[in-house]
Amino acid sequence: MFFLTPGLVAVVCILIAWIFKNADGNMERRKGETRARTKARPWVDEDLKDSSDLHPVEEDADDWQDTEESVEHIPFSHTRYPEKEMVKRSQEFYELLSKRRSVRFISNEQVPMEVIDNVIKAAGTAPSGAHTEPWTFVVVKDVDVKHKIREIIEEEEEINYLRRMGRQWVTDLKKLRTNWIKEYLDTAPVLILIFKQVHGFAANGKRKVHYYNEISVSIACGILLAALHITKGSLEEETFISFLIL
Amino acid sequence: MFFLTPGLVAVVCILIAWIFKNADGNMERRKGETRARTKARPWVDEDLKDSSDLHPVEEDADDWQDTEESVEHIPFSHTRYPEKEMVKRSQEFYELLSKRRSVRFISNEQVPMEVIDNVIKAAGTAPSGAHTEPWTFVVVKDVDVKHKIREIIEEEEEINYLRRMGRQWVTDLKKLRTNWIKEYLDTAPVLILIFKQVHGFAANGKRKVHYYNEISVSIACGILLAALHITKGSLEEETFISFLIL
Repeated sequence: MFFLTPGLVAVVCILIAWIFKNADGNMERRKGETRARTKARPWVDEDLKDSSDLHPVEEDADDWQDTEESVEHIPFSHTRYPEKEMVKRSQEFYELLSKRRSVRFISNEQVPMEVIDNVIKAAGTAPSGAHTEPWTFVVVKDVDVKHKIREIIEEEEEINYLRRMGRQWVTDLKKLRTNWIKEYLDTAPVLILIFKQVHGFAANGKRKVHYYNEISVSIACGILLAALHITKGSLEEETFISFLIL
Repeated sequence: MFFLTPGLVAVVCILIAWIFKNADGNMERRKGETRARTKARPWVDEDLKDSSDLHPVEEDADDWQDTEESVEHIPFSHTRYPEKEMVKRSQEFYELLSKRRSVRFISNEQVPMEVIDNVIKAAGTAPSGAHTEPWTFVVVKDVDVKHKIREIIEEEEEINYLRRMGRQWVTDLKKLRTNWIKEYLDTAPVLILIFKQVHGFAANGKRKVHYYNEISVSIACGILLAALHITKGSLEEETFISFLIL
């Protein structure tokens, strides 16, 4: 499992709140809502535990969507493959993706920026709540910045292992033989940092609600992974462990 | 935007708690944690607002991972495309995915079960927290069951529009011209329901923690969407609106 395998790109998926909101306030409101609804529709409440702010103050309402009315309409066109071709394509896609692994050893070989641009553009085609596209992708190539990121991540991950996540988590990870040391963040030529935007701003400066932002960003990450894997053939990439760190 | 376009598969991504946990208990604990940590590391707390149970009771610990020790080791192999090929493949993948649309009109044309199996298997290659794979995919073809699902979803979605989500949400959706009526759930020949498993069970019957289950399932959904789209050419599918309903 832990052979030194050459790799290509470290996909560091760090989900950070774009603008951190008052946690206590959110909790109070959610708690009240949960109590009122638990008996009737538990599954709904469960899903609404997103950090979306569902009931923003009134001043936010009404305005921002006006700014998007003028977006150009792109007509929808499509083709449909014959059934045999569909089966073949789905089979090939599965077989290709099934070769993906979450590894901890990454190659230092450079990768064309065009590839990085394309995989991020592919990720940006993901659906999102009310089409708010609540994601920011940051590409880091600078050696010093990468190292600083590694330091922050290792500091947090050490706390995860020693205190934050508890004994069960450390036990459950044992079989994966991971720890908080992440040399590959220095080794990888490119880091893609992925931020979720808890909310955005309309053209008029008012706050714009980003519904289901965590789910939306995670779907985009899934497409990014597929894009990277399709692009690279069957090269490995670092994915989930870094996704978990912050 | 609202032409009647033929389609293929309704991907109904319904994230429901596999086993619903005591919401009040969770809220109390999280609130305490949040208060203790807000000042030091806000981004960490934000990310930990997953429904993972990070500190399960002691009786859960230690046991379940033993059952997985005997899993067969599959050696990792890979190839790497030349740079030119990488650029070409990433470009093609992006261009193909950029044709995907979240539509509300779906074709009733049948689709081979082999295709459905393959796209779900592709989704199942997604990374997950501590490799717990906290997802369940349910394929529904029965006309009556599909209709019952439609009824449940429309009932919930109506509440979303009229009460639950608030005025801002309804305003923000106006430009998409959606509502709570979802005929396509009857029309589509196949529904794929996606459940997140808040926790699982070990072979010995004890509870198994599923870390970051919502993020993990959403990543799998992203890969499912890519698989469906690659498979079908550039046929549309229904995605996010149903993803939001429950």
